[in-house]
Amino acid sequence: METLKIVKIGGNIINNPTALESFIQQFSSIKTPKILVHGGGTLATEMAQQLDVKVEMIEGRRKTNTDTLDIITMVYAGKINKNIIAKLQENHCNALGFTGADGNTIVAIKRPVTHIDYGFAGDVVQVNTEVLQTLLHHHITPVFCALTHDKNGQLLNTNADTIASELAIAFAKLYQTELYYCFEKSGVLQDVNDEHSVIENINAKNYQALIENNIITDGMLPKLNNCFHAINKQVRKVCIGKPEMLFNSNVKHTTIQAVKN
Amino acid sequence: METLKIVKIGGNIINNPTALESFIQQFSSIKTPKILVHGGGTLATEMAQQLDVKVEMIEGRRKTNTDTLDIITMVYAGKINKNIIAKLQENHCNALGFTGADGNTIVAIKRPVTHIDYGFAGDVVQVNTEVLQTLLHHHITPVFCALTHDKNGQLLNTNADTIASELAIAFAKLYQTELYYCFEKSGVLQDVNDEHSVIENINAKNYQALIENNIITDGMLPKLNNCFHAINKQVRKVCIGKPEMLFNSNVKHTTIQAVKN
Repeated sequence: METLKIVKIGGNIINNPTALESFIQQFSSIKTPKILVHGGGTLATEMAQQLDVKVEMIEGRRKTNTDTLDIITMVYAGKINKNIIAKLQENHCNALGFTGADGNTIVAIKRPVTHIDYGFAGDVVQVNTEVLQTLLHHHITPVFCALTHDKNGQLLNTNADTIASELAIAFAKLYQTELYYCFEKSGVLQDVNDEHSVIENINAKNYQALIENNIITDGMLPKLNNCFHAINKQVRKVCIGKPEMLFNSNVKHTTIQAVKN
Repeated sequence: METLKIVKIGGNIINNPTALESFIQQFSSIKTPKILVHGGGTLATEMAQQLDVKVEMIEGRRKTNTDTLDIITMVYAGKINKNIIAKLQENHCNALGFTGADGNTIVAIKRPVTHIDYGFAGDVVQVNTEVLQTLLHHHITPVFCALTHDKNGQLLNTNADTIASELAIAFAKLYQTELYYCFEKSGVLQDVNDEHSVIENINAKNYQALIENNIITDGMLPKLNNCFHAINKQVRKVCIGKPEMLFNSNVKHTTIQAVKN
């Protein structure tokens, strides 16, 4: 099977034009089929402030009310996604922007209201690979932002890490999928203040110990849960680190490992 | 050859949720391959006001400075395009949103600065049909907003009427293309205050007379120039009128006719 690289970039790259430009140049040079997934960075928050939209926070997460969803749709699917597409084209990477509504690629359900109402937040229920596969065969690179839809006309805000892992899982039958979470650190760090303390391998066994010893804390937990979910669903390789790990095999990063039965 | 319908909808539909919903339902029922092109309506102007971005007007047209381009990208490619896509999916029309940068489908050049500087306004120089044709073969409906790119990383604001006509021309070798400009009037009117005075046929011959007699004036001229450009480049049918003309053959509208040699 051919290799498919699914690369998620976060706010630290999106917020920094120089870092983004440099990333896009290097990403464009990847020869294997590839999919890019991007978050939104701080731009949506800035836009909400400018438009005087009150941000409702629930347990550290933004509640996606109608106004917030509009802003996210404008910023993620509009400004960020289309500028990335234009820059990829400049670098001879034929890219095409996606939300999950486009081509009906990612269907989600609105997160049920329990004691918490997350608003228009979506949990992925289905990934349709057919359109994407056709495009990949034509050497086109899909670029996803963090939006899905419910098939009933409603766009939904969906975590970009989850979109990346769900895409990787859905393609695992068709490609040897590799999932790369790029962020500002060199990986999961033993000491959060020491970039040299990268934990190079995490498996289900040492994961529990890392949580118990408070090495892996709140911010990192959902990301690692996405990683384990992917590696347990036949994704071949899952890595966390700086984007440089993609282009230079000497750059240290964290690899998530499946425990072999 | 198979028929391809290219439908452009303007501000009157975009600005009116009920009209848009009704249009999308009917558009979704079109069985032949189809492409939708949409303008931006008044939403971009409203957003500019809210964000306190000064709109520079040049001969009745907005100058596209950096801030304006950002707003257009957010509103056209983000909010409007993605909500249309979600609604089309709801109506079982598998749609995929495009700017000209996506799939490198429409390349433009920044309009040269003469005595007027239009800013980031793009004139179309190339339409690449390959990706679109692949999608049409897979029963996917491309939905274009009014943005192109210059292949050098720059997005450009491009008239939606022009995008529609250039797409129709580019596809004329592959399909029997039909181009429909939907707007708030029943077509070109003999008397602008009388909806029953539709001029049903316009050809190059009576066109000049209509201009000389001030029947066709400023606002309509660029639209009709796009129509004649298309009909002279092997587009099979070009119509102007209310969207109902698409779904009901009894609805009066204006048809642009080529003069036969």
